[in-house]
Amino acid sequence: VTTPTLTVAAAARELAGLVPESVLRDETALLDRYARALWSTLTEPGDGVAGGLVQLLGPVPALEAAFGSDTALGPLAHDLGDLEKARRRWRPRLADGGHALAVARQARVELVTPLDQWWPHRLDDLGRHAPHCLWVRGDPRALSAPAGAIALVGARAASFYGEQIAGQLAAELAATGITIVSGGAYGIDSAAHHAALQAGGPTVALMAGGVERPYPAGHRDLLDRIAGRGAVASEVPCGSTPTKWRFLQRNRNIAALADATVVVEAGWRSGTLNTAGHAASLGRPLGAVPGPVTSATSAGCHRLLREYDARCVTTSAEVRELLGFETGSPCEDASRTDDRTRVLDALSTRAGRDDADIARRSGLAVDEVQAVLGLLSLDGTAVRSDTGWRRPTH
Amino acid sequence: VTTPTLTVAAAARELAGLVPESVLRDETALLDRYARALWSTLTEPGDGVAGGLVQLLGPVPALEAAFGSDTALGPLAHDLGDLEKARRRWRPRLADGGHALAVARQARVELVTPLDQWWPHRLDDLGRHAPHCLWVRGDPRALSAPAGAIALVGARAASFYGEQIAGQLAAELAATGITIVSGGAYGIDSAAHHAALQAGGPTVALMAGGVERPYPAGHRDLLDRIAGRGAVASEVPCGSTPTKWRFLQRNRNIAALADATVVVEAGWRSGTLNTAGHAASLGRPLGAVPGPVTSATSAGCHRLLREYDARCVTTSAEVRELLGFETGSPCEDASRTDDRTRVLDALSTRAGRDDADIARRSGLAVDEVQAVLGLLSLDGTAVRSDTGWRRPTH
Repeated sequence: VTTPTLTVAAAARELAGLVPESVLRDETALLDRYARALWSTLTEPGDGVAGGLVQLLGPVPALEAAFGSDTALGPLAHDLGDLEKARRRWRPRLADGGHALAVARQARVELVTPLDQWWPHRLDDLGRHAPHCLWVRGDPRALSAPAGAIALVGARAASFYGEQIAGQLAAELAATGITIVSGGAYGIDSAAHHAALQAGGPTVALMAGGVERPYPAGHRDLLDRIAGRGAVASEVPCGSTPTKWRFLQRNRNIAALADATVVVEAGWRSGTLNTAGHAASLGRPLGAVPGPVTSATSAGCHRLLREYDARCVTTSAEVRELLGFETGSPCEDASRTDDRTRVLDALSTRAGRDDADIARRSGLAVDEVQAVLGLLSLDGTAVRSDTGWRRPTH
Repeated sequence: VTTPTLTVAAAARELAGLVPESVLRDETALLDRYARALWSTLTEPGDGVAGGLVQLLGPVPALEAAFGSDTALGPLAHDLGDLEKARRRWRPRLADGGHALAVARQARVELVTPLDQWWPHRLDDLGRHAPHCLWVRGDPRALSAPAGAIALVGARAASFYGEQIAGQLAAELAATGITIVSGGAYGIDSAAHHAALQAGGPTVALMAGGVERPYPAGHRDLLDRIAGRGAVASEVPCGSTPTKWRFLQRNRNIAALADATVVVEAGWRSGTLNTAGHAASLGRPLGAVPGPVTSATSAGCHRLLREYDARCVTTSAEVRELLGFETGSPCEDASRTDDRTRVLDALSTRAGRDDADIARRSGLAVDEVQAVLGLLSLDGTAVRSDTGWRRPTH
């Protein structure tokens, strides 16, 4: 195989069941989606040359240009980096598309592309590094997260504390319709997805491998439940194994799919910091949940607070604030100190004191003391007795 | 009494034992210190009118001006706020100085003023609100903290966690000669002082009442030990009770006496936030130790991290960094990802793979793969066998 076969017949055959019927009847739409699906099989996630080519030309002409001649690109070519080198990367995979699509059809996976209604346009912020498409198990509508989406991520080897907080935040946020985005892993991810499901809220798991293979295998049931209520999605095609590179690139999708990212628990060198870095570089708000300084699984969160200017979040209300929702209670001044305090200090509950005595004890002038005592007597904080002013004992 | 008696004879009698012999022999120095001691008895802490007057004129002329006529002040008067009102505040206390000094002499307290060698000039940053003098039990040299001073403060109702961290930070910092400044209270303060003493390091307790009366009473032994190795100091004269106002003003002295302040544990409305506020308004670095979000005694620390831009500190090395000391280890990039990772992902420990296969699996071009494999083989991360490249099993 030296070039992809971009015929309507091939596209209709390969995408049967993967796209809506309406797309199968629209030749242009069909070829566009087929080309995106092929790009997904030809490239590793985050291939900026492929992304740039598709952005410039559209997926179909981009494929033709990629396996045709440089002259077809004309003056655009020099913007795209080392195209010849990229071609050498892509060519070894030209034969892989058929298998990936067959696995997808068999697993009843849906193909969602930027032209589709439920495409999460938050991903467009990744520019040339945005996925060509998403392969989705479950309901693609969950991807667009109309009420907002929060990425709750963290250590696989989480503590009881971390899982408890992840669960509590996810449950409270999901109950208000906010979509919980995570990676489907053990630990924090799992606690967040589970709590969202239990709260009856929307949740999305982004995978580093093909969506038809549960990863980790022990999360087969959890991922089935997520697909049943929300969506399990990946940019790598079906049949792909999750590799370290794909995990790192998957992390950027988590950050991009959510309006803000909160790291609940993470070790000092946790891979979760990579997700946090993507959120920060996308300009998305980044939060970190603090924990005991004696806990190694909070060290990464504290690092984010120290070095990456993450915002300290401790409650779901604070996460909502991170997402830009209004908060109910304005900050109050923690240290309002005034003459009132000084006069109250100078009063006793036992002995009555006269104005001059109170002035001396409080270090205020007698007329100041009299003014303050007037106010204090209005709300009953000071009472006047035969022997002078005192604080009531009630 | 309508004016203070500022004679050399009165000063020598009243300050006997409270100041060094050399001061008793120097009339100007003696009157200056006597006037400051009187200002301390006439005013409540933080009285900016008194502070401004002393700053402008010096303590002796300021006393004369305060109880003389406005005309003596000339054009300076309008800078000083409501002087007549202030006089009415001060006059009721004119008779109090004698008692305060008698108590101080009996308790073997030392008077330390801005002219004295061991005066902590950090306090000068408080401007008009700086103390007129400090009343000191113990060694006044401890006040100047030549190796730097850190305020470790926090909740009285501290948790085991908070006391543990306060003790650990204090011990490690005190062992390097850094002075531990705190308020002598139960909880965090106590844990910090205790650990500093145990580490044989310098520590200073700042009191809200007279230094001759242990407060809290249960800390009589602790305060004696602090006075034995470091210093117990207060700006309010001997015989004064600690009032809420004086606690709040004492907190500003803690913040000002230290190069940086760290809140180890504090409730949402803790008085400790007041100390933190003073540190921030003095432009001193402010740190907060995070804790479990489920712990009420860490809520104030998290609030400082969220609302007051406090720096998250989790180790004594991070406190030293807050103090401006160099740190040993530069920050390392947490998420370095490169072709090396992609090639390693594409290798197996079992099956040997050829360059084209690795290129396809890694999404890299064959020549890129060959270059990376060359590097990997140099450090033994990849090995070439009869069947192709693989990862070694060791």
